[in-house]
Amino acid sequence: MFTVFRGGRSGAWRVTRLASVKGASLAQTPSLSVVHSLSIALPILPSLTSWRLAGVTSHLRYTERTEKTELDARPAAIGRPEATCAALIPIKKSAAWWALTQEERRGIFEDKSHHIENSLKYLPAIARQLYHSRDLGEPFDFLTWFEFEPAQADAFEELVRTLRAGEEWKYVEREVDIRLERERLTPDE
Amino acid sequence: MFTVFRGGRSGAWRVTRLASVKGASLAQTPSLSVVHSLSIALPILPSLTSWRLAGVTSHLRYTERTEKTELDARPAAIGRPEATCAALIPIKKSAAWWALTQEERRGIFEDKSHHIENSLKYLPAIARQLYHSRDLGEPFDFLTWFEFEPAQADAFEELVRTLRAGEEWKYVEREVDIRLERERLTPDE
Repeated sequence: MFTVFRGGRSGAWRVTRLASVKGASLAQTPSLSVVHSLSIALPILPSLTSWRLAGVTSHLRYTERTEKTELDARPAAIGRPEATCAALIPIKKSAAWWALTQEERRGIFEDKSHHIENSLKYLPAIARQLYHSRDLGEPFDFLTWFEFEPAQADAFEELVRTLRAGEEWKYVEREVDIRLERERLTPDE
Repeated sequence: MFTVFRGGRSGAWRVTRLASVKGASLAQTPSLSVVHSLSIALPILPSLTSWRLAGVTSHLRYTERTEKTELDARPAAIGRPEATCAALIPIKKSAAWWALTQEERRGIFEDKSHHIENSLKYLPAIARQLYHSRDLGEPFDFLTWFEFEPAQADAFEELVRTLRAGEEWKYVEREVDIRLERERLTPDE
């Protein structure tokens, strides 16, 4: 099952900000929809006013057992009604990153950049879900989806600032930061 | 770029044997073709007499730096004209395997099962290419393609026997073993 993020003219999320952090941006769109699909080949033509990014949830790549135990102790559910803020952050890493071995990538990811350790303290208030895109031939390698209550907005800024300050981030070749607010539900929904 | 293996009535490879090693088999087909595609959604309907399996080459998952150096020193090219024998071995691992962390999987893969060490001695005579399928929503997790000269047939049997004897193989839930011979080239090809 693939998850497809579609920027366009309608969707359950309103785009409040869409900006490149590094590299080319994506087209500005007023809305974002999140759909689940058995196929990544959706019949949607690329256009200047919309885009689609697909990813898949997968097994853990870097997390070690003790870290997994800590993560599992802080389950952060996606879809909480009170989490009306979200961010979609697509990232592409450089060829140099992917030429590293697993142990070298893990060394940069956690031992030098403390990716998991730094992220843990924001759980479960800032829920996140990682989608893998690289092996799907997508323009980005990862799509990270974050959800949180408005009161966590400052904490979220701190989290992304921390992640961008680490050694790991030097291998980021392209990153777009898309901030979202949940559209108010109407009685029909 | 995806690689699609299509079992059917025509193709550059003649199927000499197709048998389940564990779990459900695939339909018997006389031929196999290998095509490269920008999409995994090929317009081919599933049928009782054919099948298609897609995968993608990707970055290294378990190989460490010293092993990579050894592997790189024994480049084994796919497509040598004298390598008229091939095998396609699709494998699906169990949910228990994928619930393990990377370090636990690596421990079973190499430290206990010596997957890389055992495979190294057959290089470059038995060339191999691994395709990842799991994140594509495919029925198998991996497709491994092997190519070798007829004189290496016994060595190849030894290699697959070794891989199936290790601890890692206990996590294999489904495996099909497809043996192939290159169709004789005609002047038109």
